[in-house]
Amino acid sequence: MPEKGLLIVLSGPSGVGKGTVRKEIFSQPDTAFEYSISVTTRKPRAGEVDGVDYFFRTREEFEEMIRHGKLLEYAEFVDNYYGTPVDYVRQTLDEGKDVFLEIEVKGARQVREKFPEGLFIFLMPPSLSELKNRIVTRGTETEDIIHNRMLTAREEIEMMELYDYVVENDQVELACERIKAIVVAEHCRRERVEKRYKKLLEVD
Amino acid sequence: MPEKGLLIVLSGPSGVGKGTVRKEIFSQPDTAFEYSISVTTRKPRAGEVDGVDYFFRTREEFEEMIRHGKLLEYAEFVDNYYGTPVDYVRQTLDEGKDVFLEIEVKGARQVREKFPEGLFIFLMPPSLSELKNRIVTRGTETEDIIHNRMLTAREEIEMMELYDYVVENDQVELACERIKAIVVAEHCRRERVEKRYKKLLEVD
Repeated sequence: MPEKGLLIVLSGPSGVGKGTVRKEIFSQPDTAFEYSISVTTRKPRAGEVDGVDYFFRTREEFEEMIRHGKLLEYAEFVDNYYGTPVDYVRQTLDEGKDVFLEIEVKGARQVREKFPEGLFIFLMPPSLSELKNRIVTRGTETEDIIHNRMLTAREEIEMMELYDYVVENDQVELACERIKAIVVAEHCRRERVEKRYKKLLEVD
Repeated sequence: MPEKGLLIVLSGPSGVGKGTVRKEIFSQPDTAFEYSISVTTRKPRAGEVDGVDYFFRTREEFEEMIRHGKLLEYAEFVDNYYGTPVDYVRQTLDEGKDVFLEIEVKGARQVREKFPEGLFIFLMPPSLSELKNRIVTRGTETEDIIHNRMLTAREEIEMMELYDYVVENDQVELACERIKAIVVAEHCRRERVEKRYKKLLEVD
């Protein structure tokens, strides 16, 4: 049996650009991990293909998947369900391939409970890294703006707590490079490599 | 005060090619970390420059450095001392720059005690990764060879225990890429980033 693949979960605040980063990663020919296609009950948009962009299902079909435990995570947005089929994820990991999910923060929390050993990456809005500058130049902004900015920052930092890594989305290409570096590094983690070799020694 | 740099320690079994990997890393223009030059009592070889290849010191000078706690780690090989000056390391880290050490396993153990938060990378001989093949094709080798191979493998795996990451030196360029990816990933670790932002919030 091959060594299990890594489950890579990319998430972050809504509007941070998760989809753009994911598309860029999978447009690169050297990307060595598999994208887990989501299931949704929303109607396909022009050009969207079932089994490529999404698995398009009816509300009844989706709710049956929920009842039968076929979803690793799911959530409802604007009257439509979105979810991650668990069979594809488990099967691909068992084949020794890394699987990449791009999901909402709420879904990431559900996945963490089921796959605590997954690799959780928080995509950080660049505005958060500008926080320092904003504080420094605070004389130029009203107290209300500063107060709201700090509230949002606090919420975003609290969201991070679930994650192993934080990647700033200052430039899409840079964010992709960092995500790929994280995956390479994780494959070199001592616990992972050592376990594999210790098993080989036992065989002897 | 800038955020502290990372202390990167590359080590591994003797003969694994640590020096070759280190030279390749520092020949690359995009390498963003500083190399900590070692002190030695051995005589300079043709072409070696004091303060570039090594700091060349007399035995008396070296022993004075030991007595005054000026060395982060040191060891004696073939009647010569080799060591890492602690002042350079601390100062460069305080400037917010990452420092790279390439040292023997014994020295790495000393550094781990003083800098437990350092990034310890074990350079693995490719022979260890061939272990599996050797076991599979074991019919073709004598029992003695297999036994010795397993003993060495066991020793090398035990050495790993101190380290955070294991990088296989199958190809120098690949090993360098993995080491650089590890440094990028470590800079994205949530604990590191989060601490920085939480500090900013406290300022407010």
